[in-house]
Amino acid sequence: MKGKFISFEGSDGAGKTSVLKAIRADLEKQLGTSKVMYTREPGGDRISEQIRRVLVDRQNTDMDSRTEALLFAASRRQHVVEDLRPALAAGKVILCDRYVDSSIAYQGAGRRLGEQAVWQINRFAIDGLLPELTIYLDIPTELGLRRIATHRADQINRLDQEQLAFYQAVRHSYLRLQKADPQRIKKIDASQSLDQVVSDVKIAIHTKFPELFTDEF
Amino acid sequence: MKGKFISFEGSDGAGKTSVLKAIRADLEKQLGTSKVMYTREPGGDRISEQIRRVLVDRQNTDMDSRTEALLFAASRRQHVVEDLRPALAAGKVILCDRYVDSSIAYQGAGRRLGEQAVWQINRFAIDGLLPELTIYLDIPTELGLRRIATHRADQINRLDQEQLAFYQAVRHSYLRLQKADPQRIKKIDASQSLDQVVSDVKIAIHTKFPELFTDEF
Repeated sequence: MKGKFISFEGSDGAGKTSVLKAIRADLEKQLGTSKVMYTREPGGDRISEQIRRVLVDRQNTDMDSRTEALLFAASRRQHVVEDLRPALAAGKVILCDRYVDSSIAYQGAGRRLGEQAVWQINRFAIDGLLPELTIYLDIPTELGLRRIATHRADQINRLDQEQLAFYQAVRHSYLRLQKADPQRIKKIDASQSLDQVVSDVKIAIHTKFPELFTDEF
Repeated sequence: MKGKFISFEGSDGAGKTSVLKAIRADLEKQLGTSKVMYTREPGGDRISEQIRRVLVDRQNTDMDSRTEALLFAASRRQHVVEDLRPALAAGKVILCDRYVDSSIAYQGAGRRLGEQAVWQINRFAIDGLLPELTIYLDIPTELGLRRIATHRADQINRLDQEQLAFYQAVRHSYLRLQKADPQRIKKIDASQSLDQVVSDVKIAIHTKFPELFTDEF
């Protein structure tokens, strides 16, 4: 059985972490832990870790946003080569917390580098490795930001108009991506209760990969 | 007077370092040292230096060539923002030791990532900042490699067939770039004596920028 590549996307406050945790537990129970790989960028490899250190260095306040986008793409490339391709070759189900769509939405639209331009550098990085299924957790921008503010009180002051515009641009970009490729990207209403969201995601995965839930896998 | 951006390109063994040294000395004498900036990638800035460390880390033997190309592009971007643009705004003449054409020739053609693909990620990085003049020092591949072998005896064993094919691909890529944009890229016959090559380069610079050699600058 060949592996499956599922990515999870969504704006801040959509509940991605909680949903991923529930889906991961469910799939591990169904398939066994050795068949499921949870991962996020940068990968755990040495090179991605070095790139991550450049990206998160708080002294790098003068990092240009195009430099940042290229570093994310470089880290993604190494993740593809060292983690994702070997896992697929080993027949695993990959649950990937954010992938190319995040770059297009956050850097292309949010930071205004251009969705097409960011897609081009990422196309070079992934060299054809797109997820077969992308779960997009959609939430109205203000509701998502209110959820973050509730959970992370220290960030409440940062919810100014500029941030609202940024996150609205991110959401509209995700919605455009979903409309352009509805076969790959499934939109889930993340304003519902966590249980309902998890249930909807499970249905989307079952629908896309019925073979995952038979003895054939 | 606005600045001028001149890049220097060529295969290994073309004598680029010696030529650049002579041209730099000549221009500094003509214009004053404060008007001339010699630079090469990565720039001296903190972020480029951090990226350089990832690129040259000898333990990173498993770095994918696409990761490498993206890191070079990220470093180039930061060089553009922190060094090249400010120097141009200050009215300087920039002498840049390698720029985008090196990536297209070495990574696009030599490492077979595709010239068009490497150009796309670099177009994103430079965001319109191409040199007004590129000096391409052209030398037949075998002659260039023999020169390197003479100067660097320790490398002689590495001149195998695979390397020959690599450097031939690099040269043919440079020649294609020159033919596609003869207004920007001037080909200089680097198989001549150093004095003759330097003289030809000076003529190319004088022809492109006659105003550099009048009192107007």
